[in-house]
Amino acid sequence: MTADESLMRECIFLAGSGKGNVSPNPLVGCIIKKDGKIIGRGFHKKFGEAHAEVNAFTDAKKNGYKPEGADVYVNLEPCSHTGKTFPCTDLLVSERVKRVVIGTKDPFEKVNGRGIRKLRKAGIEVVTGVLADECRELNKFFFKYVTQKLPYVTLKIAQSIDGKIALNNFKSKWITGEASRKYVHKLRSEYDVVLIGKNTAKLDNPSLTVREVHGRTPYRIVIDKDSSLPGSLKLFTDNEKEKTFVVTGVSKKAVTEIYSKNIIRVKEKDQKLVLKDILKKFYALNITSVLVEGGANLYSQFVKSGLFDDLYLFIAPKIIGKGISSFNDFEISRLSDAKNLKFIYSENFEKDILIYYKNVHRNSTDNR
Amino acid sequence: MTADESLMRECIFLAGSGKGNVSPNPLVGCIIKKDGKIIGRGFHKKFGEAHAEVNAFTDAKKNGYKPEGADVYVNLEPCSHTGKTFPCTDLLVSERVKRVVIGTKDPFEKVNGRGIRKLRKAGIEVVTGVLADECRELNKFFFKYVTQKLPYVTLKIAQSIDGKIALNNFKSKWITGEASRKYVHKLRSEYDVVLIGKNTAKLDNPSLTVREVHGRTPYRIVIDKDSSLPGSLKLFTDNEKEKTFVVTGVSKKAVTEIYSKNIIRVKEKDQKLVLKDILKKFYALNITSVLVEGGANLYSQFVKSGLFDDLYLFIAPKIIGKGISSFNDFEISRLSDAKNLKFIYSENFEKDILIYYKNVHRNSTDNR
Repeated sequence: MTADESLMRECIFLAGSGKGNVSPNPLVGCIIKKDGKIIGRGFHKKFGEAHAEVNAFTDAKKNGYKPEGADVYVNLEPCSHTGKTFPCTDLLVSERVKRVVIGTKDPFEKVNGRGIRKLRKAGIEVVTGVLADECRELNKFFFKYVTQKLPYVTLKIAQSIDGKIALNNFKSKWITGEASRKYVHKLRSEYDVVLIGKNTAKLDNPSLTVREVHGRTPYRIVIDKDSSLPGSLKLFTDNEKEKTFVVTGVSKKAVTEIYSKNIIRVKEKDQKLVLKDILKKFYALNITSVLVEGGANLYSQFVKSGLFDDLYLFIAPKIIGKGISSFNDFEISRLSDAKNLKFIYSENFEKDILIYYKNVHRNSTDNR
Repeated sequence: MTADESLMRECIFLAGSGKGNVSPNPLVGCIIKKDGKIIGRGFHKKFGEAHAEVNAFTDAKKNGYKPEGADVYVNLEPCSHTGKTFPCTDLLVSERVKRVVIGTKDPFEKVNGRGIRKLRKAGIEVVTGVLADECRELNKFFFKYVTQKLPYVTLKIAQSIDGKIALNNFKSKWITGEASRKYVHKLRSEYDVVLIGKNTAKLDNPSLTVREVHGRTPYRIVIDKDSSLPGSLKLFTDNEKEKTFVVTGVSKKAVTEIYSKNIIRVKEKDQKLVLKDILKKFYALNITSVLVEGGANLYSQFVKSGLFDDLYLFIAPKIIGKGISSFNDFEISRLSDAKNLKFIYSENFEKDILIYYKNVHRNSTDNR
């Protein structure tokens, strides 16, 4: 690993501290180095607040350093437009830094290379593409959201060795162990939305909150076409109930009479809610990431439509026998028609194993 | 790792070269060290031929060394009885070695500590229990066979992400990739027997031979209670057909009229063949290890009866949807009734992942 890569890795690490708080903005970390020494660190902490670069310069000055002539490391191209804050490229130019090392270009149309050009025009040396893959992975939500105008969709499945997510009598609580559940809570705290289907809401009555780790509860959205879920569910009654939304085909007025909830109305097509329409609606609501937590019908819809990006598959060391399979709503007649995923890594959580897959054959979010 | 452990690891490695050829004997490797130098190596190559210790001394002498006063490393307690060969303990005593380092005691009733006592009586220093777990794992077939008078049973399952071993139309060939299949061929070459159920024989018409790696084809046994399988199957017609046996409830005479095959007759109970009776019959035939390769009914029987020892679970990065689950022949009503296994390790085979589990709650084969 080169010195540039090593500092870029630290930027990625810093940037990660913003997870769950910056959406729909990207995660950004920034490091300022001068005379072989790190003089400032910063990351984007919260949507609407200062960018990483600003925080890093503030940090440097607070410590009594002058950034003039410094090297600046940042995982994403500095912004060149005035949004909620002043453009970071202008800051870098006015601070007269010598060199800027960038992970990936910012695909956002108002930036998309303009930041880099602006810096070069000002005589600053710019290096790009340092740990580009890691930087893209860090901001996978943002890249999908900006380039495809859809939120990033992750399926999370907890199943037995034999691929069952519940018994035939629908009992499904605690298939996996504590460590796995804790990791799921961590995931929830990083996604904008946790999405479930109607049956899961009714049968499991889950709370979908973040309890096992420090972090905020995401928006909890349940798809309920006819708005017929009982208002007594935890989602509608617990402390976080303002964070619960219902996707429905019923008009807001009709819904309000059943129970007063936050409604996301999606027009039915052939008496069905189309997944892509739901995701487009999410995009319009600035939702960049969705964690799908069941059940089998919803998982199946995402696989059939190809509208998911990756899969966290937790396997508990149990054999259940007959039961509910994770994808029970479609059938193929040739093995070559199976949905192919790509294995990325596996990790152990006590007795369970987590296998992380990415979807393949989808539009690339590559922005190299 | 101590020096003793390091040499014991080499014994284990050496012993492994005998896999597939020594059953029902154990796998044994032996190393002779003198003056800080390895002067002889040997392993048990083939059932009925010389033991590892004999081969190691032959090797030392061939190289012009005198083993007197040497340290001898061996993963299993040297035999103290006259079987097909002269007792190895007598050899060690007559060669006047100084010290013997042993992995595990030999649980075989004619040895079981007698070898160690004999050596100590002769004034030889004996160290036991070096890398005992690894040594036991190496000889897991032998330990089960000797202590429980049953063969060691391994389930091998190749499934999709969603736990399907075949489509609903029974198409199941090549769910996993080449590297996984190659590993399965390696497994076959190490087991005495590959066992399948009648449906798998009929629907898949597998050959179950060892083709992708160098090694011998195991006995191929199919359970066919009524002896109604067609004689045209590959198992009955290919080059290795003498290695195919049929477990049946029908008398040999009746069978011979249908097709002339090697018959293992097991008495029916309530018109069923009982798995334990089949395994006892295998034990009587000196079968120490069985690799079960399907299908779902047979897997289910092994899980219900608890008569299996471990599971090689290959997962291909595919989603199949509706299909045949690996264990479709039993149902539980509470999650706490699920069959619990123990995760041991995972390994990647190109795009597939192999997860290795051991059965829990069974009689221990521990011989510490």
